[in-house]
Amino acid sequence: MKMPPRLYIALLHYPVYDRRGRVVTTAVTNLDIHDISRSSRTYGAERFYIVTPIEQQKALVRKILRHWQDGPGALYNPSRGEAFGLAEVRGSLEEVLADISEKTGCRARLVVTGARFTAGVIGFEELRRNMASDSGPYLLLFGTGSGLAGEVTDRADFILEPLGRSSDYNHLSVRSAVAVVLDRLWRER
Amino acid sequence: MKMPPRLYIALLHYPVYDRRGRVVTTAVTNLDIHDISRSSRTYGAERFYIVTPIEQQKALVRKILRHWQDGPGALYNPSRGEAFGLAEVRGSLEEVLADISEKTGCRARLVVTGARFTAGVIGFEELRRNMASDSGPYLLLFGTGSGLAGEVTDRADFILEPLGRSSDYNHLSVRSAVAVVLDRLWRER
Repeated sequence: MKMPPRLYIALLHYPVYDRRGRVVTTAVTNLDIHDISRSSRTYGAERFYIVTPIEQQKALVRKILRHWQDGPGALYNPSRGEAFGLAEVRGSLEEVLADISEKTGCRARLVVTGARFTAGVIGFEELRRNMASDSGPYLLLFGTGSGLAGEVTDRADFILEPLGRSSDYNHLSVRSAVAVVLDRLWRER
Repeated sequence: MKMPPRLYIALLHYPVYDRRGRVVTTAVTNLDIHDISRSSRTYGAERFYIVTPIEQQKALVRKILRHWQDGPGALYNPSRGEAFGLAEVRGSLEEVLADISEKTGCRARLVVTGARFTAGVIGFEELRRNMASDSGPYLLLFGTGSGLAGEVTDRADFILEPLGRSSDYNHLSVRSAVAVVLDRLWRER
């Protein structure tokens, strides 16, 4: 089971909308780190970036990551340690893009996800075909809160078709959404 | 978007294995209730049962459910309230089966999920076909801890093909696994 090469994932805590549509910074959620690390590792993503500009939150994430990467957690649960090996914290989307450029020599294509998009979206099969015919890195962006702010989605190379588009209810957790998106991208190869 | 009719979901906290293979009762996890309620509602499941035999845990779950179903949570986040409307707590798998029998007049077919199964499993497409040709209820069972104990899997009508079967890493969270299983069953109709 392999993803298209060089798939990167980022979970943004800023800039995202709150439920009233204001741009805010959300707090990091411990189980997001666990679940998305595990999904990233299962489906073969290269890296999972947790993005927050707040220094205390970055320090908290580093502490959690260390616990599972090299600390008591790695001894208690080695498979969790393996998943956490993919995770790191960054201060901004720009820092993530710079890191991917440094690793791969290419600027990543930005793929934005979210539940509210209707027009101009790319389907899973089409995205997969694009990734297969393009050797460069792709960065899948997921938003916390009520979704990625316009200043991020405006920069997208692709806006991914929302999950649950034909449901009358479309409020998956971001943890669930990451797993389903990766499963669909993997399966539709 | 509709699931095959009468799909029910249960998350078991007993009897499940711990990491050493001992049968234990696990503690309820708040975010399991949130995420699986939301996935159940998005993909059109009939009901989501949280199963624990421990009275204090049942009381805790009821308190959480009430907060989001009718309490301050329902006002703060009506869509969360709507998802929690599908959730209820039960003391055992038998109680779940009795409830489904009462609601539908039929005993549910038991579909067991887990990461460790290799032989005798049913694929997603085949399960979907079975569900389409059978008007009775199906109960998808998910285990916490390190998976459903043998006394549960021995009773299965079907054992579902594990997710991530061809990955070298297969440790999705149960929250992620529920979302992916529902997405696959819905998509493969």
